[in-house]
Amino acid sequence: MQNVPAGGFRAALETLLGGDPPAGAPLVACGMVGSRQGWVEVPYLDCPADLAAITAALASAGERSIAIVPGLICRNDAGIPDVMRGEETQILGALEEGAPRRVVVLPGTHSKWVLAGASGIETFATFMTGELYAVLREHSILGRLAVAGAEPGAFERGVSAGLEAHVGLSHALFSVRTLALTGALASAGVADYLSGLLIGAEIAAGRRWLEERAARALPITIVGDAMLCSRYRRAFALSGVDADLGPADAAARGLWRIAHCARLVP
Amino acid sequence: MQNVPAGGFRAALETLLGGDPPAGAPLVACGMVGSRQGWVEVPYLDCPADLAAITAALASAGERSIAIVPGLICRNDAGIPDVMRGEETQILGALEEGAPRRVVVLPGTHSKWVLAGASGIETFATFMTGELYAVLREHSILGRLAVAGAEPGAFERGVSAGLEAHVGLSHALFSVRTLALTGALASAGVADYLSGLLIGAEIAAGRRWLEERAARALPITIVGDAMLCSRYRRAFALSGVDADLGPADAAARGLWRIAHCARLVP
Repeated sequence: MQNVPAGGFRAALETLLGGDPPAGAPLVACGMVGSRQGWVEVPYLDCPADLAAITAALASAGERSIAIVPGLICRNDAGIPDVMRGEETQILGALEEGAPRRVVVLPGTHSKWVLAGASGIETFATFMTGELYAVLREHSILGRLAVAGAEPGAFERGVSAGLEAHVGLSHALFSVRTLALTGALASAGVADYLSGLLIGAEIAAGRRWLEERAARALPITIVGDAMLCSRYRRAFALSGVDADLGPADAAARGLWRIAHCARLVP
Repeated sequence: MQNVPAGGFRAALETLLGGDPPAGAPLVACGMVGSRQGWVEVPYLDCPADLAAITAALASAGERSIAIVPGLICRNDAGIPDVMRGEETQILGALEEGAPRRVVVLPGTHSKWVLAGASGIETFATFMTGELYAVLREHSILGRLAVAGAEPGAFERGVSAGLEAHVGLSHALFSVRTLALTGALASAGVADYLSGLLIGAEIAAGRRWLEERAARALPITIVGDAMLCSRYRRAFALSGVDADLGPADAAARGLWRIAHCARLVP
């Protein structure tokens, strides 16, 4: 989206499609295209929200109508909001109709933990794991200790440190530096240890969030980029949980379900 | 230290002193000058360590001898090390001889929480509060929401959010974005809210650390940069604790106590 100039969304779409869309083909899009900096701002829809509610809130953009999926908003007990855009569509794509209640974890820049099931998307929480990794890796003293390469077990050691980071993340993070400084962690393992620590801390924090909602025992499905999902699955396994992987094309499936519900496709 | 070329420490010292040091004047230095990238590497001394032990471990550098104070190292129950360089000297300078046991908090890039008293420095924990603020402010999506200025109460709201961040820091941080996005936090208040959130989370985490050591009831003394100390003092007050401020010249006082103990000064 950062490469699309003001007013250039239609042209960007045509570039992506390799020309004009086929006449009569319905167009449905989700994600940041519906944000304030997107094609058209689609207001966040309140949680809980199911397929019908999300479909009813589709907005349209452009001369020839393209339907844009709304993002979702929820609030915790203190009234602090949380938001998503795009993940609601991936979740709808990952869950079959009538799927039993579960936790959907969508790893990424802003990882989401979501309570969802047959009644739709109930509530969720964001963890800034991916963005913390990127800024610490590129701009902090921790990243400066890293050299390219790999060190067997470094990711797993990081996950354990993150899962056990009961004092707090900003304290646990300093172990990246002290272990490297004292020779207990090879420079080639620093990046993987940091990644593991942040993911482990996210899993521990996500569990606290689930506990507060009496949802700790629900099954977990991970949805997103294959490589990231496999890292999270390994981290969940280290924490004693066997998490499922959702379909790789969850976003496309979700868009299809929405298009179907909106009677744009048969 | 980043501005000192290899082998240039003697010249840098003379620049700082405005020429050759007076004949016979003892020279004592602490901090990163004793690190691997410093003038001479002084090994970390194990905790607990008192004035006598720290003085006995002074190293010397340069043709005309300059005494360099060792940093300290401690380990938690899991064997993960923590380190400081320079703060040990500030702590010795902040505590009178025979001072009762207390918690010394040294805010900064890598904030330190330290258990110390008449028997010296027992143990400590580092929180990367200042560095997290800097990288998030300059390089993250949270920093991009900030505009210059001030918003009354933004710091205090951040402190409360940090103190109550029981799910975890990486989740609480996202509130910077969602509050700004929904208009509940003015852009001019983003930087102060972020600062307050990180300091509040540090205080909550520091307390968990103290609780594990049955030291939650000890008095707290804050030592360091005046402006930062005043922010921390306000944050402690919001958490219901009246923290003392240590002397502004704690490092100089500490160096003097060490020089005295080493019989370099009367």
